[in-house]
Amino acid sequence: MSEIRVGIVGATGYTALELARLLLIHPQASLVAATSRSDAGKPLAAVHPCLAGRTDVVIETLDPASLATRCDVVMCCLPHGASAETVQQLVKAGSRVVDFSADFRLSSVDVYQQWYKVDHPWPERVGKTVYGMPEYFADEIRKADVVANPGCYPTSAILPLAPLVRDQLIDPVDIIIDSKSGVSGGGRSAKVAMLYCETNESIAAYAVGMHRHQPEIDDLVGRISGHTVETLFTPHLTPMDRGILSTIYVRGRGTADEMMECWKQAYADSPFVQVVEHLPATKHVAGTNFVQMSARDAGSRVVLLAAIDNLSKGASGAAVQNMNVMFGLPETLGLA
Amino acid sequence: MSEIRVGIVGATGYTALELARLLLIHPQASLVAATSRSDAGKPLAAVHPCLAGRTDVVIETLDPASLATRCDVVMCCLPHGASAETVQQLVKAGSRVVDFSADFRLSSVDVYQQWYKVDHPWPERVGKTVYGMPEYFADEIRKADVVANPGCYPTSAILPLAPLVRDQLIDPVDIIIDSKSGVSGGGRSAKVAMLYCETNESIAAYAVGMHRHQPEIDDLVGRISGHTVETLFTPHLTPMDRGILSTIYVRGRGTADEMMECWKQAYADSPFVQVVEHLPATKHVAGTNFVQMSARDAGSRVVLLAAIDNLSKGASGAAVQNMNVMFGLPETLGLA
Amino acid sequence: MSEIRVGIVGATGYTALELARLLLIHPQASLVAATSRSDAGKPLAAVHPCLAGRTDVVIETLDPASLATRCDVVMCCLPHGASAETVQQLVKAGSRVVDFSADFRLSSVDVYQQWYKVDHPWPERVGKTVYGMPEYFADEIRKADVVANPGCYPTSAILPLAPLVRDQLIDPVDIIIDSKSGVSGGGRSAKVAMLYCETNESIAAYAVGMHRHQPEIDDLVGRISGHTVETLFTPHLTPMDRGILSTIYVRGRGTADEMMECWKQAYADSPFVQVVEHLPATKHVAGTNFVQMSARDAGSRVVLLAAIDNLSKGASGAAVQNMNVMFGLPETLGLA
Amino acid sequence: MSEIRVGIVGATGYTALELARLLLIHPQASLVAATSRSDAGKPLAAVHPCLAGRTDVVIETLDPASLATRCDVVMCCLPHGASAETVQQLVKAGSRVVDFSADFRLSSVDVYQQWYKVDHPWPERVGKTVYGMPEYFADEIRKADVVANPGCYPTSAILPLAPLVRDQLIDPVDIIIDSKSGVSGGGRSAKVAMLYCETNESIAAYAVGMHRHQPEIDDLVGRISGHTVETLFTPHLTPMDRGILSTIYVRGRGTADEMMECWKQAYADSPFVQVVEHLPATKHVAGTNFVQMSARDAGSRVVLLAAIDNLSKGASGAAVQNMNVMFGLPETLGLA
Repeated sequence: MSEIRVGIVGATGYTALELARLLLIHPQASLVAATSRSDAGKPLAAVHPCLAGRTDVVIETLDPASLATRCDVVMCCLPHGASAETVQQLVKAGSRVVDFSADFRLSSVDVYQQWYKVDHPWPERVGKTVYGMPEYFADEIRKADVVANPGCYPTSAILPLAPLVRDQLIDPVDIIIDSKSGVSGGGRSAKVAMLYCETNESIAAYAVGMHRHQPEIDDLVGRISGHTVETLFTPHLTPMDRGILSTIYVRGRGTADEMMECWKQAYADSPFVQVVEHLPATKHVAGTNFVQMSARDAGSRVVLLAAIDNLSKGASGAAVQNMNVMFGLPETLGLA
Repeated sequence: MSEIRVGIVGATGYTALELARLLLIHPQASLVAATSRSDAGKPLAAVHPCLAGRTDVVIETLDPASLATRCDVVMCCLPHGASAETVQQLVKAGSRVVDFSADFRLSSVDVYQQWYKVDHPWPERVGKTVYGMPEYFADEIRKADVVANPGCYPTSAILPLAPLVRDQLIDPVDIIIDSKSGVSGGGRSAKVAMLYCETNESIAAYAVGMHRHQPEIDDLVGRISGHTVETLFTPHLTPMDRGILSTIYVRGRGTADEMMECWKQAYADSPFVQVVEHLPATKHVAGTNFVQMSARDAGSRVVLLAAIDNLSKGASGAAVQNMNVMFGLPETLGLA
Repeated sequence: MSEIRVGIVGATGYTALELARLLLIHPQASLVAATSRSDAGKPLAAVHPCLAGRTDVVIETLDPASLATRCDVVMCCLPHGASAETVQQLVKAGSRVVDFSADFRLSSVDVYQQWYKVDHPWPERVGKTVYGMPEYFADEIRKADVVANPGCYPTSAILPLAPLVRDQLIDPVDIIIDSKSGVSGGGRSAKVAMLYCETNESIAAYAVGMHRHQPEIDDLVGRISGHTVETLFTPHLTPMDRGILSTIYVRGRGTADEMMECWKQAYADSPFVQVVEHLPATKHVAGTNFVQMSARDAGSRVVLLAAIDNLSKGASGAAVQNMNVMFGLPETLGLA
Repeated sequence: MSEIRVGIVGATGYTALELARLLLIHPQASLVAATSRSDAGKPLAAVHPCLAGRTDVVIETLDPASLATRCDVVMCCLPHGASAETVQQLVKAGSRVVDFSADFRLSSVDVYQQWYKVDHPWPERVGKTVYGMPEYFADEIRKADVVANPGCYPTSAILPLAPLVRDQLIDPVDIIIDSKSGVSGGGRSAKVAMLYCETNESIAAYAVGMHRHQPEIDDLVGRISGHTVETLFTPHLTPMDRGILSTIYVRGRGTADEMMECWKQAYADSPFVQVVEHLPATKHVAGTNFVQMSARDAGSRVVLLAAIDNLSKGASGAAVQNMNVMFGLPETLGLA
């Protein structure tokens, strides 16, 4: 099979960098184009010095028709709103697209507009776009023109929760998700709050009771399990580059051991889901596409723990995994 | 009034260093002795190079009778079990003592022995020693010979929870405490798990469902509020030197605003408790004796957030605060 | 004596925050005003949440005449160029000023304009303003209306070098200064290069062969020693909040021990200079106004090591030390 | 060609972990055995949780004869002294070996014994073992039974210095190397000095004037260039997991541009050496086998800057690169 030609739209951020790194070592894909409004004309390696000597790609301004000709798949790393508009243009020009934004993740346009406070540019496709989690939706991903790449926090919550709710091991409306993320989740734009001296040596919650990943978690766990789900989700900023640990408090009919057993069965064919005996640390999965999950009994509740790399399984690794599925390649190619 | 002469027993760890720093700038106290089994004979400043040129104290082996003669108060920074034994000797030799260990914090010898897995060397004093939280027990601290200095995590949980349970604003048996601590909480002994490259760039839970600070929290919130309390407490190790953030999930009759109002009244005369509008970060209180607390509504629950410096308000700052109360000084002396 | 009333101009950065912290614990000074172009109208504690509950000062727009009336001394934390202009206005309105910028540090207007690429707004005062290093210029500082607060890197280089050059122990034109600074030295403005994920887990040199602190070091070591000095200065950005370590390679007639002896004599009356046997680490002086210095023989050269806290002795601690001298207080007041 | 079967001796440290990671993704090698005195009987993934689910190797006690039968090459990660003894046994049992220790790096037994303070267990091979730097010694590596894998600091110094000395662009006896390393260079044994709270938020020099990598640098740059070389080498511990930046001060006949040109020619066929225009940061090469080098004019000297990942190009990546050369594979296989 010939190489998959990949383009990246919005190539200056951290997820785009991680994506470029993964594509440069992928045996069946090659990075052929990268776009950015702000840095067009510069070599991609000038914007990301760790790519020095590894790619000749020069950043260009976005021309959907041209990209569609030169790429088999486009990875769209734009912010919500802007992304849906570009995805629509790319699809109409004939591209297959993996969309990193939240624009096509939710089932409902109303919920989207309520949480994201913008009109959706392509509402017809909301609820009709596959959620890019091959652990559950590989068949649809295989034939999709657009794949909605999952959010970072949702990945760390949906994977442990979905099978437990589906198998009715836990109460679907008494779930507390306390998530801790590295700073790269906040993006690469120049904001005082993301400066080294603001976030280093400090941990804090943010967006308490109002983070947009909460409806995404509820929607997806609901869709996968067939039950109505209500979670309380609280994200925290942690002084490290990458990684998400979600500590999830559930109540139910099962013990921690039974929940681990449920996971082992649910994910027997999922190469990136690891059910482990030890308590997962984000360092154990840094730079990998794995999620490590474990469970512990604690009084009348069970505590679930799930660790991912927010830039890999939480973003760009998942995108490559989706690309592999879209093009009929082994799911793990270039990711092991 | 003449200076308070202070001795430190177990002077080589991080809490002892923080204590030495605080005593060196205290206008009415002076550090006159320091003991350690392992480093006797060395200048204290050789073990803690940041004290270079600031103290002439030489580490000695522990002699309770001698210490009692030369000190008005002894700060005992030994591990549990060993501490109770030494505290007993010091008291019998005539010292007043602030004990940093857990040995005299709980109400019940049985609960102590169940969680700490040792026989208590001085069981008569368990349940009869004041808990060193001047926000609640200043009168008893004033006349105490032994003060049980609070645990770091418990401080960050008891202060927000106690008034809410007492005023029946929250359900006392549906409380989840998700705490994140800097690495100094793990002490200064040579363990692989505490190496830089093990804990840096990583966050992980530990002792899930079985940390000894859980019974301490339940006991104290119960004592202060007059209600039976059951919490689920999960500590996490966070890649930073110092700081604890506790994210506490409660359910009850009140809104976040009502809970903030309850705190403002409860702590109107407590100079170190700050009820703040912003979401507290551990960096905001690093190096201070303050606790910053805030609350947010989140669906059917309220999320409480409390940040302290684990080495200061969570250990040595609290000890100095207790010392100030014991000797009739203003509570904030040397701590503002 | 009545309290010194202090105003801060340019109050939103990290040096201003450190200054506010120091003033809040100073027994003879009080912070009475703070100005900023961008945040006028906000409480100072809203811009710096770690000041919550500790100061009522509200940020105002700069009015030199008004400030001069209400303050005994103004600390000016503006960038170079802008600072000289404001300092001139403040002095004309009757203030005494400690200037944190480089505008009045150098001896020569030409050298200033060559390195800083701006016309100097008040050239008459260049070369006639005292350099705020009380270890050498206390007499002039005492009566000065303007004190040029030293640069952070220069402090870590001038203190070890000046006495050695003066006593002709080292060759004054074969000096290499390799300095490593924490990220707070880069300021608090929103720049991509200062984001957490750019600087964390990385060390790099910057401004090699062209950093503006090099002429300041050469000028001051020259002035103090009476010899022409030429250094090669290379700064590095290090993943930590605060601290500067300067590793200085010199060649000369003396051994490391002789150089340490020279320092001990030169700084016998300088309470913040510590000549130590151990190799200094920035952590040993973090949060203090001390410099720790040591020397080691290494083949035909001697390696000098000096550690300071860039925000304290390298900026705001030095400013308070200067203020103490200006107002006839003990040099260490509020800084021990 | 069939897979190269690899064994790791001394498998519990950070270099061994990095090696295991690299071997698990290498297309032509497989990790078949791992030994350790302390953890025999445990799965390798229990000692290194980030290997969970990725390898079934169980740690065994070292049996050289058995290893030699089952492995085509053994990677020996033991400390100096112990390593030479084991290497000798392995070679006699028929293994090819990559030795991570310093035991076979130097030319002279006397210099070895002077700096390492031990008798050399196999002195006959000192000076007759190839130094594992394929950029210079690929032909000998190809046929070697033992390859002395380079030290981490030396790699960052030899690569920039050797061609400049050889081409007489710099003075070979006026070279100052100021190196900054991440903490993983200090190993994984339980020492107080390597605890998180000792090294975090701090930078310090160590072993000034007496680090064992200095004779290695002098020896190798001398061997490659044909000139007698004397450097002054000072290592620093930097608060980050991995990475080395060496800032090298040289004096000579050439400009920075001429030195960059010399490098480009010298390393035209060296896929891992990158001569870059920007100032290298350790983050740019983290997790890769690249060295990034640049040069800048600075007065009468030139400043050379070289960044590597100490665990990869500074240890395990170099070992895999050597293995590739030993077995006739493309030098970059599994490392791009």
